[in-house]
Amino acid sequence: MPAIANPRLLILHPRLNLYLKPSFATMLFRSHHNFSLFSFNHGRKLAIPKPQLFSVNPRNLSSSQLAAEAHSNSRDNGGGGRSGALSPPAIVEAIQKIDVNPPKGTRDFPPEEMRLRNWLFSNFKEVSQLFGFEEVDFPVLESEALYIRKAGEEIRDQLYCFEDRGNRRVALRPELTPSLARLVIQKGKSVSLPLKWFAVGQCWRYERMTRGRRREHYQWNMDIIGVPEVTAEAELISSIVTFFKRIGLTASDVGFKVSSRKVLQEVLRCYSIPENLFGKVCIIIDKMEKIPMDETRKELKSAGISEEAIEELLQVLSIKSLTKLEEILGPTGQAVSDLKQLFSLAERFGYSEWIQFDASVVRGLAYYTGIVFEGFDREGKLRAICGGGRYDQLLSTFGGDDIPACGFGFGDAVIVELLKEKGLLPELNLQVENIVCALDHDLQGAAAAVATILREKGQSVDLVLENKPLKWVFKRAARVNAQRLILVGNSEWQKGMVSVKILSSGEQYEITLDELE
Amino acid sequence: MPAIANPRLLILHPRLNLYLKPSFATMLFRSHHNFSLFSFNHGRKLAIPKPQLFSVNPRNLSSSQLAAEAHSNSRDNGGGGRSGALSPPAIVEAIQKIDVNPPKGTRDFPPEEMRLRNWLFSNFKEVSQLFGFEEVDFPVLESEALYIRKAGEEIRDQLYCFEDRGNRRVALRPELTPSLARLVIQKGKSVSLPLKWFAVGQCWRYERMTRGRRREHYQWNMDIIGVPEVTAEAELISSIVTFFKRIGLTASDVGFKVSSRKVLQEVLRCYSIPENLFGKVCIIIDKMEKIPMDETRKELKSAGISEEAIEELLQVLSIKSLTKLEEILGPTGQAVSDLKQLFSLAERFGYSEWIQFDASVVRGLAYYTGIVFEGFDREGKLRAICGGGRYDQLLSTFGGDDIPACGFGFGDAVIVELLKEKGLLPELNLQVENIVCALDHDLQGAAAAVATILREKGQSVDLVLENKPLKWVFKRAARVNAQRLILVGNSEWQKGMVSVKILSSGEQYEITLDELE
Repeated sequence: MPAIANPRLLILHPRLNLYLKPSFATMLFRSHHNFSLFSFNHGRKLAIPKPQLFSVNPRNLSSSQLAAEAHSNSRDNGGGGRSGALSPPAIVEAIQKIDVNPPKGTRDFPPEEMRLRNWLFSNFKEVSQLFGFEEVDFPVLESEALYIRKAGEEIRDQLYCFEDRGNRRVALRPELTPSLARLVIQKGKSVSLPLKWFAVGQCWRYERMTRGRRREHYQWNMDIIGVPEVTAEAELISSIVTFFKRIGLTASDVGFKVSSRKVLQEVLRCYSIPENLFGKVCIIIDKMEKIPMDETRKELKSAGISEEAIEELLQVLSIKSLTKLEEILGPTGQAVSDLKQLFSLAERFGYSEWIQFDASVVRGLAYYTGIVFEGFDREGKLRAICGGGRYDQLLSTFGGDDIPACGFGFGDAVIVELLKEKGLLPELNLQVENIVCALDHDLQGAAAAVATILREKGQSVDLVLENKPLKWVFKRAARVNAQRLILVGNSEWQKGMVSVKILSSGEQYEITLDELE
Repeated sequence: MPAIANPRLLILHPRLNLYLKPSFATMLFRSHHNFSLFSFNHGRKLAIPKPQLFSVNPRNLSSSQLAAEAHSNSRDNGGGGRSGALSPPAIVEAIQKIDVNPPKGTRDFPPEEMRLRNWLFSNFKEVSQLFGFEEVDFPVLESEALYIRKAGEEIRDQLYCFEDRGNRRVALRPELTPSLARLVIQKGKSVSLPLKWFAVGQCWRYERMTRGRRREHYQWNMDIIGVPEVTAEAELISSIVTFFKRIGLTASDVGFKVSSRKVLQEVLRCYSIPENLFGKVCIIIDKMEKIPMDETRKELKSAGISEEAIEELLQVLSIKSLTKLEEILGPTGQAVSDLKQLFSLAERFGYSEWIQFDASVVRGLAYYTGIVFEGFDREGKLRAICGGGRYDQLLSTFGGDDIPACGFGFGDAVIVELLKEKGLLPELNLQVENIVCALDHDLQGAAAAVATILREKGQSVDLVLENKPLKWVFKRAARVNAQRLILVGNSEWQKGMVSVKILSSGEQYEITLDELE
């Protein structure tokens, strides 16, 4: 390692949180004529960020002083070229490029992505409002206790949880329903039922980053609190169908598989299997498609289900016809009667061709109690698009009143994949009505005045904030899809006028400020 | 402690994450005829959630089995009254009410709050678009390294940070600017400058919960990347003025204090104070108003500023006139020339009366380099409404190109307080165009068909999903502010008609389904 004459000249850069292993730092010094290990920029020089590696006494200089010194020196020597020499008075400084990517599993939304997100969310919101639902939201950070449920749900293992500075166990919400239940209980008698609430919120799951899954997604939820009848489920499915139609999907692109958890419950009851196994069995069955059948059998057996019951269960789960189900379970049970009502309502709502009975649908959350449904793509390429159902006991297990409820969650990921596949993603461009530009530096203020006049009339304006050649301005106008270019030039301005160019037609004219609108 | 004949009958309820201290559990058993210690509901019975307190062998029953058993039993015995007896065969069950409040320092948004938030955000967004800005967003969870800056900022001490399951140091974002800088660097040459970006996002700070402060707030940001001239700052302030006007505030309600960090820099330079102390001095001065003057002097001294320089600094900071500043700093410096240009532009933009020079404004973030500004209420009752400035070196300290930038942050808390004070909060009600109701249970499907027809025509419909008395329906119609009530009755339906009542006038008529629109 080269000798360092004056250790104070080693500028440390703790704000970039760059930690080098000692061996790595040594290597760096050994190879100080070849800095390609680091992402370098603009000939800035490199510093070593671990004070204890060198003879800098941290008591003499606080880390912020050191950082500030680095900062100041970087400006003073900004123009210098690369310097590999470490002998004085060379100053070595680290500008370690930060990781420019968002944390693993998360996304940035640059303008083009944001336009798509806004388009999607507007459709979520407009459909919800068409159905008379009110928007709500909850904290993205909730108490962990809200999500600690029984039955081995996937969601619990994927909780993004930690202890906050006040030693509270908190979690980034993995779903919205528990928060909604909490808020409904909190509101108590002050709200009149039924509640029809919707939300579009970000949810977090710490999943293995396989299969292109992300760790956060936005979820559209619609919930009806206080309606025990199947009309509620029928209404919810109707709203999703309305959404699908709005964004260009048809019944030949997507559909809903519908069942009821009561089917399972009635089979279990036939075999005198204790109801307390219900949740656990549901979770096992929900994973059925992803694991070998023998594995499912084994799991059901170790849950305490007899082999005979398992076979019956698996047979029932393979049923895709309501008539067949009725033959097996009989016509008097709640499961069959609920499902028959739903299919009859679907006809009146006008979405019969979108839904089909499928006993294998149970959904992966422990709290469902009745009808469950799942949106799917008919080509079978993607995971479920959305899912929901009735959860009549969630509020009471949280200590609230026994209030019937149902709802669904609809993520922002699978639907975008599907629209991409079908070529249905909309083309969304930035659109600004006017671009206003001063032709002379002295006219910047005049251009600002023109922009203000237009904006006060509700016209959007991209104001050119620097003196730029006209060629640049036209390129900019094209990029922002401006309809009009308004040029503020000296001779027109002295007459109280500006020059207007309609960019689609090329038409050009002069008008007074009063005429601008 | 009373003897328990059959410990298996103690139903445990781990899903509610209710932990009792042993002493507390004992007390509970001692006073089993008085359960008022717990928030009780519906005569449900109480269970003890700590298996190890009693002779239940957890190896025989998994916690999920126990929970499921509790669950099943709660339904079987749901109708039972309160029972204090613990002797068999009484079953003790815990329904501990969850904490119905959001975590400390966070908020729920029930419909009325959500309407206000949507109204505020719409104004943020519409103003941004009027100025030709594009919306962006970033993850709420960022790498902690992004926020580790020098100079003792308050924001760093308040970081909501933790280690994720992959041992990465992450933080809930305390502000949006570092994420924006990260994304700009990531985009590199693929974007054409200047960028004009805005965002409305939630930010988190783990503050002591004094003075009614919350730990999360939403922040509206507008940033201009790539413009070195003061026109950019002038444009940003113009957009905030536009926002203020839009929501009913005038220049006699609010204003902007404006200064430049270059003022401070020039004073420090006069006294040959090393520039590396700049950030630190700014942070000390930013807190000046909150702490005694002597404390500020002491902090400045311990930062290494001479007493003479401190006095000069404090004197300059008290200046409220640009002319006076020019007298002291001379007319040639960048600080005075930037500020003069800003005030001249303000005149052309038309917001002169909204802004004033105030040398004491420096803002609490380390990265500002030039003009800084702060929105304030003229009655001086509230904290700063918004704040921003130029940060020409943030991108390069992150390892990106040297790109000039400026922007502001505008929180959702202070502005709402101010509007409340001024009586300017809008009245925002749920508004549904139609309420549709079947007069007979058999007509639920018919009502669904009517709702579908209306919704396909873009009319919002609150569909009554149960059979309810007309009186209830009218009350509901009033609550949702419906314009029309559409009743589906048997005799009309057989003629293919429905009955329509205009709720504002009381006018009532029958029309065919084709005529509905």
